[in-house]
Amino acid sequence: MITFRNDYSQIAAPEILNRLCELQACSFNGYGLDEICDSAKEKIKKYLQRDDVDIHFLVGGTQANLVMIDGILRPYQAVVAVETGHINVHESASVEATGHKVETLPSHNGKMSAEDLDKLAASRTDEHMIRLGAVYISDSTEIGTVYTKEELLSLRKVCDKYGLYLYMDGARLGAALTCQENDLTLNDLTNICDCFYIGATKNGGMIGEAMVIVNDDLKPYFRNLMKQKGALLAKGYILGVQYDCLFTDDLFFRLAKHENEIAQYLKEELKGLGVKFFMNSPTNQQFIILKNEVIEVLKNKFEFEVWEPGETETVIRLVTSFASKKEDVDTLISCLKELL
Amino acid sequence: MITFRNDYSQIAAPEILNRLCELQACSFNGYGLDEICDSAKEKIKKYLQRDDVDIHFLVGGTQANLVMIDGILRPYQAVVAVETGHINVHESASVEATGHKVETLPSHNGKMSAEDLDKLAASRTDEHMIRLGAVYISDSTEIGTVYTKEELLSLRKVCDKYGLYLYMDGARLGAALTCQENDLTLNDLTNICDCFYIGATKNGGMIGEAMVIVNDDLKPYFRNLMKQKGALLAKGYILGVQYDCLFTDDLFFRLAKHENEIAQYLKEELKGLGVKFFMNSPTNQQFIILKNEVIEVLKNKFEFEVWEPGETETVIRLVTSFASKKEDVDTLISCLKELL
Amino acid sequence: MITFRNDYSQIAAPEILNRLCELQACSFNGYGLDEICDSAKEKIKKYLQRDDVDIHFLVGGTQANLVMIDGILRPYQAVVAVETGHINVHESASVEATGHKVETLPSHNGKMSAEDLDKLAASRTDEHMIRLGAVYISDSTEIGTVYTKEELLSLRKVCDKYGLYLYMDGARLGAALTCQENDLTLNDLTNICDCFYIGATKNGGMIGEAMVIVNDDLKPYFRNLMKQKGALLAKGYILGVQYDCLFTDDLFFRLAKHENEIAQYLKEELKGLGVKFFMNSPTNQQFIILKNEVIEVLKNKFEFEVWEPGETETVIRLVTSFASKKEDVDTLISCLKELL
Amino acid sequence: MITFRNDYSQIAAPEILNRLCELQACSFNGYGLDEICDSAKEKIKKYLQRDDVDIHFLVGGTQANLVMIDGILRPYQAVVAVETGHINVHESASVEATGHKVETLPSHNGKMSAEDLDKLAASRTDEHMIRLGAVYISDSTEIGTVYTKEELLSLRKVCDKYGLYLYMDGARLGAALTCQENDLTLNDLTNICDCFYIGATKNGGMIGEAMVIVNDDLKPYFRNLMKQKGALLAKGYILGVQYDCLFTDDLFFRLAKHENEIAQYLKEELKGLGVKFFMNSPTNQQFIILKNEVIEVLKNKFEFEVWEPGETETVIRLVTSFASKKEDVDTLISCLKELL
Repeated sequence: MITFRNDYSQIAAPEILNRLCELQACSFNGYGLDEICDSAKEKIKKYLQRDDVDIHFLVGGTQANLVMIDGILRPYQAVVAVETGHINVHESASVEATGHKVETLPSHNGKMSAEDLDKLAASRTDEHMIRLGAVYISDSTEIGTVYTKEELLSLRKVCDKYGLYLYMDGARLGAALTCQENDLTLNDLTNICDCFYIGATKNGGMIGEAMVIVNDDLKPYFRNLMKQKGALLAKGYILGVQYDCLFTDDLFFRLAKHENEIAQYLKEELKGLGVKFFMNSPTNQQFIILKNEVIEVLKNKFEFEVWEPGETETVIRLVTSFASKKEDVDTLISCLKELL
Repeated sequence: MITFRNDYSQIAAPEILNRLCELQACSFNGYGLDEICDSAKEKIKKYLQRDDVDIHFLVGGTQANLVMIDGILRPYQAVVAVETGHINVHESASVEATGHKVETLPSHNGKMSAEDLDKLAASRTDEHMIRLGAVYISDSTEIGTVYTKEELLSLRKVCDKYGLYLYMDGARLGAALTCQENDLTLNDLTNICDCFYIGATKNGGMIGEAMVIVNDDLKPYFRNLMKQKGALLAKGYILGVQYDCLFTDDLFFRLAKHENEIAQYLKEELKGLGVKFFMNSPTNQQFIILKNEVIEVLKNKFEFEVWEPGETETVIRLVTSFASKKEDVDTLISCLKELL
Repeated sequence: MITFRNDYSQIAAPEILNRLCELQACSFNGYGLDEICDSAKEKIKKYLQRDDVDIHFLVGGTQANLVMIDGILRPYQAVVAVETGHINVHESASVEATGHKVETLPSHNGKMSAEDLDKLAASRTDEHMIRLGAVYISDSTEIGTVYTKEELLSLRKVCDKYGLYLYMDGARLGAALTCQENDLTLNDLTNICDCFYIGATKNGGMIGEAMVIVNDDLKPYFRNLMKQKGALLAKGYILGVQYDCLFTDDLFFRLAKHENEIAQYLKEELKGLGVKFFMNSPTNQQFIILKNEVIEVLKNKFEFEVWEPGETETVIRLVTSFASKKEDVDTLISCLKELL
Repeated sequence: MITFRNDYSQIAAPEILNRLCELQACSFNGYGLDEICDSAKEKIKKYLQRDDVDIHFLVGGTQANLVMIDGILRPYQAVVAVETGHINVHESASVEATGHKVETLPSHNGKMSAEDLDKLAASRTDEHMIRLGAVYISDSTEIGTVYTKEELLSLRKVCDKYGLYLYMDGARLGAALTCQENDLTLNDLTNICDCFYIGATKNGGMIGEAMVIVNDDLKPYFRNLMKQKGALLAKGYILGVQYDCLFTDDLFFRLAKHENEIAQYLKEELKGLGVKFFMNSPTNQQFIILKNEVIEVLKNKFEFEVWEPGETETVIRLVTSFASKKEDVDTLISCLKELL
């Protein structure tokens, strides 16, 4: 079976596994208070071109989101996301489980519009409706699109107007930052967001998400929050190893670029076949519409996710990863050629 | 520096790292729905001699505790632990953060007495005092002691009397089951506890805690709970690999036995030097009392935790791990010989 | 100022205040364990034509909703409401504060459609999306409309299909049950809903909402839940007095009927003037659309709520209460006559 | 039956009921935004001799505690109380239900010692143990004792040292401030505490607790918190009426003084009979030790609470209220005379 199911189907980039093996005989302090974590943080800071941020390594995306959002919000505040936002639909109400409502706004190609946000925030004037405290966005989004710098700056402006914190879910930040449509840098994010995370799980790491906290308000006691939510790994140095490798010699960006390139190659080939696209994505998630009988045949040879089933046609998602190969795309395309 | 600081200071047993390297090129389904996880579960079930249990792999101990306890309790119920219980003191009020009180009973060498539990449960008769819903114990305990089968059966009896669920934190279950004072088997635990976890993090695994749910009431929707608390790892197969290795050829028990043997060797040697013990522990955690000036010297060569500081004497904790060596003990002893 | 602002603008029906004065010298047990509460419950049960229900007196609607919903749901479950549902918009995320998501469905004149519910419930098949546990509806709804027996039975059917509890917010249940469009009885509600409350605050009582629990699953430990949420009034007998009066000689229904009658008189008169209605409501809340300049003049003499402000026209809400008088309507109408 | 069961067994002081009857025909704004609430707040501020405080009217003590404490604390913080503190034992874990641990210190006659608090706060230095955020005390305490100004100032000093908020539960503040041992004024409380409430329920009011927020940090969005916890009464003016009456012509203090005087008369008479006291209380709760057979006889004529049952002797609690009469004490004493 050839897989286009996900970007977390393989253990990790070889550099990371090799490094773990090399360090096998070493002893480390627990809970992320070790020299590898320190080194990894220093390396990330260089890429951020910022020294004045706090960095913490968490294990997974849902965990990162719930710890950060619960840390930001006061009991009388909600977080706002677009309807397709991961925290709104695919995290089993993990934010609500910490006591906070997720307010929703319409998704514009997976993205939030500053105008919508402004209107919503302006409407919250009494104690019967929940106040807003934070804005949640993802880049790349749940459907593979990316924010432009201008879009982010517009959101920032509204956040400043209403005193909201801006938080970015970066589970697929690598794919976003290395795609052709992108005009953002890591340094831009530190200037625009109050906090965001740089995901490793979907970018060639074995596990790990690196939370970057820029706003001083949000820095104190974050480790306490992590511990409380079960997010402070005893063997924190394992996470340190991931980021120490990924932020050496641009590995993080090379892996991301690779998955984007394979995805764009796939996109071009599919276009060549006249396949309909559900969404124009510049990153490693591609959404296409196929006849149901075509999909049934494909399932025998390829793994992928059904996104929106229909009576005659269905949207499927094809995802590339650090381990994806051009040959896999070629096999898929030649198979499709016969079916269409 | 020679470390007696903890049993999670080294990455993992070589068998595990080797296996990860071997599987590097494979693709797996996400979220623990893969064949390695299936295989690992089957192997554990054989050791449990029980087929009718649910097994789930979580990432860490605090996480395992908070997911399970929140899953057990109704809003009007509390969990009971001894005062020294990990959830009561060292998990940053993670259980309370899910909305539940941790009621406490006195610790008898780290253990809960059935009599104390009976009295407490009997006292909860109206709606002003919180009801009890679950009992939390650990084996080995936070101070290295272990439960006997008789002690567990007495607790079970009280649990049955009041309709309480019995949950065991098995972060160091390997050390408990392989120590000389132990008279329990994994199968016994399935007959006595409603649920418990078998810890890998402190037993040679890289990460991972395997939750075993015996009571049918507690099985439904446990994966939903995991997801909600950020405890459902995208690359769940990494956890599967840990347990698949650990439950092949008794590796789990061999590693545990090794750490106990080194600890007991240490204990005998320390006794030979006339060192005072704070607690008689049959497992891999040893607590000794030393003059403060001795400790200051030791700190230059050895890593360990200060347990209870005093004005002239201090309790320190020495922990052995799967990677501990007899030579490390010898070095410590000869160093102490000079100092005492 | 003549008020059409709300149905809770006056202290209470005279019968209730008189009774409180009569009982001034008496002593009662605390926390609702007194003879007046017992008597009130017996009287309500007669009106319900059911003996096998539990009845509890709470202080307010938001409180009643959050206690009941938190009591129903398990941590991995959400409650579903229509978008206009009170718990979704006007209770400051009180349900989320107990750890549960409020899922929303479109409002059809303030009501939930069984078909929508069926579709939503069917879509929840994995652990990434929150499971449904309960359905929240209100009768009369937030915009004054009422459910028919057939509509309720359809919802019940879907609830049974998916194992969902059906909970009705009865803040304005009196208005619903006594309006011309209604074909439901209190007894019907006990057969269709798992639990519902009969509101006094908006129906002539000073304070109080009577929770009726029909489903045996939901009965145990409800007082514990109340206590925990600060909903167990020390002087519970004050609440008992409300219901003991309201369910003597049909007072509850007479007061409700009165507010409906005044509202329908108002409606007819407004229609006579050619006023546009935002919503066709058979109960004591009327929503009309007026030019902004008309509204500005009205504000000098009448109190009411602005529902949906617009640039030239605005929706306002006119509410009648147990204390509303025909003369007040006449004054409003003659004032409007001049303005239109 | 003559009652010494509680100070909330009678509806309300006549002044309050009369006022409610007088206001029967009036209309008020909802949710406490009315002129009676405003007037009541102004009157309380005069008694506080402080203008710069926020005052909110809540319905009950457990509710007041959980709203305020949840409002104070951040997720990584706990509140500290003495073991006998109401939030620790008699509020069904309502604070934990909002996600926060209640840490406990030993009770010294119902009171917290500054030294104990200092030690505990000093011990919280890492992320594994929960941080402290607030201190909860009650005056009068759960066993009738009162704080001296010096004791409160010592606690304040420790709070300042560690950045903790000091919150006082004033369910029986009237009894405290009017007892002979008291050297505190309401104004002192505004200088020493960050927030506290002045209880009406146990001081002659029908319902109501007035939260006084002194510290500016705690003022914003308190109404939002109230709404969210179901603590914002629709007919808030009912609460306003209570306090408007109670803080007119010293009624609050006269009622409190009356209950203390009856209690002290009772105390002297009991001493005259040689009855043993469990606790030396200067306020309206008296705790005495009687033989079990005496208690059995008393139960036929008097209502009271059994505090601590014993095999031969039992501690009972006798409480006086605004409605207690000297004759009731005389009857009890003459009955006891025959029994002892």
